Amino acid sequence: MNYPNGKPFLRNKTEDRSSRNPYSSKIEYGGRGMTLESDIERSNQYYLRTGKAVIHKKPTPVQIVNVHYPKRSKAVINEAYFRTPSTTDYNGIYKGHYIDFEAKETKNKTSFPLGNIHNHQVEHMRACSQQNGIVFFLIRFKTLDEVYLLPLSKFEFFWQRYCKEVKKSIAVEELRENGYYIPYQYQPRLNYLEAIDKMILDESEDRV
Amino acid sequence: MNYPNGKPFLRNKTEDRSSRNPYSSKIEYGGRGMTLESDIERSNQYYLRTGKAVIHKKPTPVQIVNVHYPKRSKAVINEAYFRTPSTTDYNGIYKGHYIDFEAKETKNKTSFPLGNIHNHQVEHMRACSQQNGIVFFLIRFKTLDEVYLLPLSKFEFFWQRYCKEVKKSIAVEELRENGYYIPYQYQPRLNYLEAIDKMILDESEDRV
Repeated sequence: MNYPNGKPFLRNKTEDRSSRNPYSSKIEYGGRGMTLESDIERSNQYYLRTGKAVIHKKPTPVQIVNVHYPKRSKAVINEAYFRTPSTTDYNGIYKGHYIDFEAKETKNKTSFPLGNIHNHQVEHMRACSQQNGIVFFLIRFKTLDEVYLLPLSKFEFFWQRYCKEVKKSIAVEELRENGYYIPYQYQPRLNYLEAIDKMILDESEDRV
Repeated sequence: MNYPNGKPFLRNKTEDRSSRNPYSSKIEYGGRGMTLESDIERSNQYYLRTGKAVIHKKPTPVQIVNVHYPKRSKAVINEAYFRTPSTTDYNGIYKGHYIDFEAKETKNKTSFPLGNIHNHQVEHMRACSQQNGIVFFLIRFKTLDEVYLLPLSKFEFFWQRYCKEVKKSIAVEELRENGYYIPYQYQPRLNYLEAIDKMILDESEDRV
């Protein structure tokens, strides 16, 4: 599978970005200023509202140690700690398919560092994949303002390379080759279901 | 669908409970002393370990207001509040099926009160069901020590009755008729996947 999204390497960045989203104001120029998380959140709300999919971010896992119950007001948690997530951040359902993914953004311009992906998360994703789930990463390059969907099946090569201490990151060119480019648009901001459709089609062809 | 689990109404309770699980010690007599949550947790761990399903409880949603970062030790959340969950407690994947459910237990001996089920949770479950997910409640009667799986499709009747202020609860007999009885066993403690298999079979027959 080469360049499934047909994204060209060389092009006029400024021209491309403005043509990408004719509705964007100066403030919402592309994805700039917005986090990947808030873009996914908005898209998920759109998908839910239009009956296209039910996908939610899981709450941050917190270990609650102490709770105070003041009179006539709600309970206050006054001692708690962040716990390492054992799964991914997002899951849900789309047209009967179980969807499971992790979203990450990087300030790095040339590659996506794999250092902050935990082994137990990859284990979880593999387990979901074995049950025939649709499992992937959503990766955003902040400075390039580009978002890619990378299927777990494609991620495995880079993860092996990382575990063998050959290379600590995925080059942006490698993502362009192996992932699906997700353009910013008016609504939903990140139409990643479209990329999922392509991924399902490609992976079913791979199986034949 | 009547009595899908074949559970009889009248029987010798003591005899039945001991015959239900020949491996149970006096301490782990049936589900007694264990919460529904811990029984589901153990079963989910078993399912994960044996590659049967990947189902997790979502973390408790908490709104974090203030975090303290002490030197040389981990971050402490010193002000946070419980948020109302907008979805269900459990979801995951089983043989390609998206699984979504809410677990509740009651001390009530004769009926399951619907008062602590939120409308937005039912809305979420309906949305998942429309995407062809497997959606249900797991309900445990503490004193009777009985657990039932009630499909959302069957729950709807009782929910309508509740919303119309006709009846505030589901009688245990109604659960026996409309739900799937899940016996306690050695491993997994609550084999609810077996009940899901029956539910899938019944609902596919209903569609024909």
